[in-house]
Amino acid sequence: MHRERFYTLTASCPDRVGIVAAVSGFFAQHGGWILETTLHSEPPNDEGIAAYFMRLEIKADSLPFDLDGLRAAFKPVADEFNMTWKISDSAKRKRVVILVSKQEHCLYDLLARWQSKELDIDIPCIISNHETLRGFVEWHGIPFHHVPVTPDNKVQAYARISELCTEAQADVMVLARYMQILSPELCAQFPGRIINIHHSFLPSFVGAKPYHQAWERGVKLIGATCHYVTADLDQGPIIEQDVIRIDHSDSVEDMVRYGKDIEKTVLARGLRNHLEGRVLIHGNKTIVFR
Amino acid sequence: MHRERFYTLTASCPDRVGIVAAVSGFFAQHGGWILETTLHSEPPNDEGIAAYFMRLEIKADSLPFDLDGLRAAFKPVADEFNMTWKISDSAKRKRVVILVSKQEHCLYDLLARWQSKELDIDIPCIISNHETLRGFVEWHGIPFHHVPVTPDNKVQAYARISELCTEAQADVMVLARYMQILSPELCAQFPGRIINIHHSFLPSFVGAKPYHQAWERGVKLIGATCHYVTADLDQGPIIEQDVIRIDHSDSVEDMVRYGKDIEKTVLARGLRNHLEGRVLIHGNKTIVFR
Amino acid sequence: MHRERFYTLTASCPDRVGIVAAVSGFFAQHGGWILETTLHSEPPNDEGIAAYFMRLEIKADSLPFDLDGLRAAFKPVADEFNMTWKISDSAKRKRVVILVSKQEHCLYDLLARWQSKELDIDIPCIISNHETLRGFVEWHGIPFHHVPVTPDNKVQAYARISELCTEAQADVMVLARYMQILSPELCAQFPGRIINIHHSFLPSFVGAKPYHQAWERGVKLIGATCHYVTADLDQGPIIEQDVIRIDHSDSVEDMVRYGKDIEKTVLARGLRNHLEGRVLIHGNKTIVFR
Amino acid sequence: MHRERFYTLTASCPDRVGIVAAVSGFFAQHGGWILETTLHSEPPNDEGIAAYFMRLEIKADSLPFDLDGLRAAFKPVADEFNMTWKISDSAKRKRVVILVSKQEHCLYDLLARWQSKELDIDIPCIISNHETLRGFVEWHGIPFHHVPVTPDNKVQAYARISELCTEAQADVMVLARYMQILSPELCAQFPGRIINIHHSFLPSFVGAKPYHQAWERGVKLIGATCHYVTADLDQGPIIEQDVIRIDHSDSVEDMVRYGKDIEKTVLARGLRNHLEGRVLIHGNKTIVFR
Repeated sequence: MHRERFYTLTASCPDRVGIVAAVSGFFAQHGGWILETTLHSEPPNDEGIAAYFMRLEIKADSLPFDLDGLRAAFKPVADEFNMTWKISDSAKRKRVVILVSKQEHCLYDLLARWQSKELDIDIPCIISNHETLRGFVEWHGIPFHHVPVTPDNKVQAYARISELCTEAQADVMVLARYMQILSPELCAQFPGRIINIHHSFLPSFVGAKPYHQAWERGVKLIGATCHYVTADLDQGPIIEQDVIRIDHSDSVEDMVRYGKDIEKTVLARGLRNHLEGRVLIHGNKTIVFR
Repeated sequence: MHRERFYTLTASCPDRVGIVAAVSGFFAQHGGWILETTLHSEPPNDEGIAAYFMRLEIKADSLPFDLDGLRAAFKPVADEFNMTWKISDSAKRKRVVILVSKQEHCLYDLLARWQSKELDIDIPCIISNHETLRGFVEWHGIPFHHVPVTPDNKVQAYARISELCTEAQADVMVLARYMQILSPELCAQFPGRIINIHHSFLPSFVGAKPYHQAWERGVKLIGATCHYVTADLDQGPIIEQDVIRIDHSDSVEDMVRYGKDIEKTVLARGLRNHLEGRVLIHGNKTIVFR
Repeated sequence: MHRERFYTLTASCPDRVGIVAAVSGFFAQHGGWILETTLHSEPPNDEGIAAYFMRLEIKADSLPFDLDGLRAAFKPVADEFNMTWKISDSAKRKRVVILVSKQEHCLYDLLARWQSKELDIDIPCIISNHETLRGFVEWHGIPFHHVPVTPDNKVQAYARISELCTEAQADVMVLARYMQILSPELCAQFPGRIINIHHSFLPSFVGAKPYHQAWERGVKLIGATCHYVTADLDQGPIIEQDVIRIDHSDSVEDMVRYGKDIEKTVLARGLRNHLEGRVLIHGNKTIVFR
Repeated sequence: MHRERFYTLTASCPDRVGIVAAVSGFFAQHGGWILETTLHSEPPNDEGIAAYFMRLEIKADSLPFDLDGLRAAFKPVADEFNMTWKISDSAKRKRVVILVSKQEHCLYDLLARWQSKELDIDIPCIISNHETLRGFVEWHGIPFHHVPVTPDNKVQAYARISELCTEAQADVMVLARYMQILSPELCAQFPGRIINIHHSFLPSFVGAKPYHQAWERGVKLIGATCHYVTADLDQGPIIEQDVIRIDHSDSVEDMVRYGKDIEKTVLARGLRNHLEGRVLIHGNKTIVFR
């Protein structure tokens, strides 16, 4: 938890000698005070290509640049190593649009974290296919949009959601037990920017009623999975997972209840890591820098 | 999760042959449908006395009694075995008074559970030594009492809290990160009816600033403990505990943040077990029937 | 951990009023001191039939029966309630045949527990498709049988294993990372008596190379599952499971290494529960009485 | 798990701009292929001094140096930043002396890991105050030394142990449930090189009979702690900890049994991290680079 303003650089590139030296050399040369560095080299894939990933936090006032200046100055280094890269500024709050249905546990949890500034984000609006949670949301001073989704209006509904998120300049959309399957178009429009919480330990129990599936199979632990949404249902890159112990005496209703506790915790952890730029997507997997 | 009305019998007595036979025989004789039975025999203590504990749930409409009738009918069995016992009725909601300070995470969590009826309780009022959370509480339609506590007014403040809880006919008081040390008198007035969440894995790090203590010692896991409040600070019978992994890179602030997630979960689990009559106090320890 | 000799009764039957009363009444009438009672009533299935399960430990010398006498005396009670039941005697050690391949971690673990009498069992022999572990086994004074399994000799090999287990009067066969798929005939011959440890959190990653599958999918926890072997690969009733956290920096080799620690622990816990008669099979699921 | 030979550099120094640039620049300049880099900057202490920690793995054959050559070439960099540093060579196996008493679970576990080369170490000898485990040790081809410890011979006994370890050129001594309190002299002689497993979640339940203490207090989880041994009993820097859930039905004997499973796992994890140079001691705490 750094109080001071800092820049976060995340980057990936083909692995070779000298990457860290070049990047840290660049910052050292400009007097940049690095607060945190995490690095990962992925072993070569079947084509023999090894990928390198990095995330740095640098004290803003230790550098002689503003954000644009930093980007311009860093570009030659990035180009040299053929990096996919991004620099963000801790002074600019991330904008998070939350989508909910009727269940309130993830929403209460996220708003408690937002209220206490544990999650230091802006929530430009909350979207739901039901009116149930309007009062609670509006009491917090957050605009609430009711976008009903029916078998007949899906195209329009998802277009409306897309429009609302675009207007809200959302950095990320969070499906906080939203219970609707987004259209492939919507998924394609916000790649790596839609986060879902699925109420099973994926890849077990994909799709509907995972707790019923878990009960049928007689597993001894149930779980939750926070992942990026892609057009393939519950197949996107996994960000975070956790499990909780159950036993033969637990009914499906008991599992639903226990499950809520891990759903909200796993979602919050995954979201936080995403917001802090700790999650780098690599194919259908993630690097999560602690 | 039984939908139907049921009675819950909890009892303890000296162990001897025939206890279960007598109790289950009593219910069988009256056609009572037992939904759940959990039993525990504690090994003999230093005086050679072994204690027996039990908890039964019986379908209300399978018995030819109302609550008072059941109590009267069961009394001879209880007397024969010298039982300490209690029968409660699922139709009568428990009354829970919550005490908070400024931190909101446990309160949001409890109110989400109450709102969704996951915790099927009445909350007659919420008491705080600060005004901070009044709006949130009152939006939920729950009376909020501000009872400031200063070094000078402690006697009056605790008298006022006692009065409010008595008026509210509270079954239990929950200290949801209340941050004040209750007076021995108040503790004595509600024995086994005040539940606290302490932000450490007791008996480690008793008292103030447990996360600072944990950071100083360099532990690799931090925890939270839900326990009954007694006159001895953080020494009461433990109901539930859990831990979460940390590492050298976590500051005290990080620990505070991670800790919140276990504090609220552990408190909710402990409270639920208490409300369902699953927690039997035995000396300074608890039997928690799952 | 009871030092004294005791009988263990396990039983299941259709649920109805009076089961516990009849069983505990039977023991009370004969002065039987019940050390432990665990009960479970499974909610009605789709046909409306509710099943009841129980497990009791009764001090042997509190009863006026030997094992056969007890069985004879209890039979009328069992018949009245249409029970499937079994009574075993703690004085008679269970006979466990272990099957291994080349990997040693589960075998070292089981033999350490046997050596220290933590697992108070007889191991009449250990069977392997490789010679690798002969020396280690024989040093412990346990007969070692090498039964090679090739694509061509499977029928004879499994017949030989069956013969060895029958001669050894095995109560249970433990596949301690045996790595061979048993024939349906062998599975059918020892129903509910073959225990396997699978190196994934089932139902995820059935079959071969589960850690490779886990690595491909990018899960954040890996697990192990102890289950009864049936003719359907990795589909038998689950006894016990656990998981361990991994991250993006872990290779398949790292997962294999971490996995060993949960494999051996989960296998040992599952086996112990089986040996103590704590595991009751119900369809394709288990009741595990703690 | 790198198959190729590599050097491991661990270093700590006062934090300032340019450390990573200098170190990674040094390796880049010589064509060094860095396999793994982990970094940690400890926030300023009360004196305002911030400490920096690092660990790098570099492919040996990517550098134009042997080990001594590398040390000589790196020295100027280390001096410039006032580093405490060390470079080790993966080709040189660490030498681990194990001390045991009568309990076998940690020893079986460590020897299984050694046997399978999961722990790629040399075990020059095993020392015990009892003869119990001689046969098991010697079957593995490892010399076994019986050094009895009595109230009267402690000085000589510890002198003998010190002598054996020195002769064995031990890099580290592992107390695998050794059950004897080492003398302050012995501790001082091998600072940061004696690893113990304590059977509680420290700082709870220091000293003798921790499971009895845990039972008395009625905790709901029990734990184990792997730490460096210092002259203060159970107060040394903690390397690794873990816990396991228990409940009211568990006796002290049950806790002892469950506890063994975490003791051996926590010890093995802590030892492995130490051997790989992942543990850096900082005051009475540790940095553990994953």
